[in-house]
Amino acid sequence: METLQRKILQEGHVLSGNVLKVDAFLNHQIDPILMQAIGEEFATRFQDADITKILTLESSGIAPSLMAGIQLHAPVIFGRKRQSLTLVDDLYTTTVYSYTKQTSNDISISKDYITEDDVVLIIDDFLANGQAALGLIDIVNQTKATLAGIGIVIEKGFQDGGKILRERGYRLESLAIIESLEEGTITFRDEETN
Amino acid sequence: METLQRKILQEGHVLSGNVLKVDAFLNHQIDPILMQAIGEEFATRFQDADITKILTLESSGIAPSLMAGIQLHAPVIFGRKRQSLTLVDDLYTTTVYSYTKQTSNDISISKDYITEDDVVLIIDDFLANGQAALGLIDIVNQTKATLAGIGIVIEKGFQDGGKILRERGYRLESLAIIESLEEGTITFRDEETN
Repeated sequence: METLQRKILQEGHVLSGNVLKVDAFLNHQIDPILMQAIGEEFATRFQDADITKILTLESSGIAPSLMAGIQLHAPVIFGRKRQSLTLVDDLYTTTVYSYTKQTSNDISISKDYITEDDVVLIIDDFLANGQAALGLIDIVNQTKATLAGIGIVIEKGFQDGGKILRERGYRLESLAIIESLEEGTITFRDEETN
Repeated sequence: METLQRKILQEGHVLSGNVLKVDAFLNHQIDPILMQAIGEEFATRFQDADITKILTLESSGIAPSLMAGIQLHAPVIFGRKRQSLTLVDDLYTTTVYSYTKQTSNDISISKDYITEDDVVLIIDDFLANGQAALGLIDIVNQTKATLAGIGIVIEKGFQDGGKILRERGYRLESLAIIESLEEGTITFRDEETN
């Protein structure tokens, strides 16, 4: 997705440890125009899949999921990283380890909002080692719904998540794939070799 | 806002302790059609204010803020409830006590995204005792930007937050004001007596 790649080059910052900071438009400040385009792109890529629900994780997955949900006419459910007092019973839960934060979080969703009749699209902002995506897949499996695929805004192609998901046969659509951040330079993978 | 009131009556649940659970369309599952209407309503109410930035809190404030941001052509910044490794320096920070969760959280935003030239609209999903809104106001004051007002999806009119903010002279626009949840019945305040 060319507009996204351009935005990453213009406003992304490479920090030490292969961290790509995109707080300017995705993870802290949200560019609503770009986010609309991201939602439209996800909708185009999954328009044949008859999506009935979108599943994501708080917080940075919410904006791209909502924009895709508007296009696909599908409600968005965001998994919570810890339980709140108003959401305690009847949960599907899984545990996700975050390498960035070096902590494990339980993520959970209410059993009320995804049933076995649903066709679910998972959306997240980043794919690195795949822990969050695998956690969301585990939740979809618990619901017995059909998993249509996984939509990712930015995949770090030099980490294992994308490889793991593709090898397991999941349909993975990443709007931008970073091949390398070495020496502070952002290099994208060619679209053809996704 | 009549469509919102209707949705609250149809899909909201009153729990013990004056808790209104709206996980079906606002706090856990997001109804994209309703959220579009909420964004349009905020935009209409603040269309004369020349908003340049919208400030909210993760996670449930993100969806209504993004929809308002699209209408008002303004980027959205969401305050984080704890610091992440990619966001440590140059923060505006304040402390917010959550009566629901009985914990204090530091919320922070990067100094990069709001400057003294901005006109800021604060948006949040709920207003109860006003702690979160006062925290966001504190952050806007630290930025020296102009605060245009506060947009709330659901105000609990029987708690003090709305009274405090109006008495201090802030422009507060609540799309639905709950007058009472007594005996499990949802009663709205008349629009005229806002």
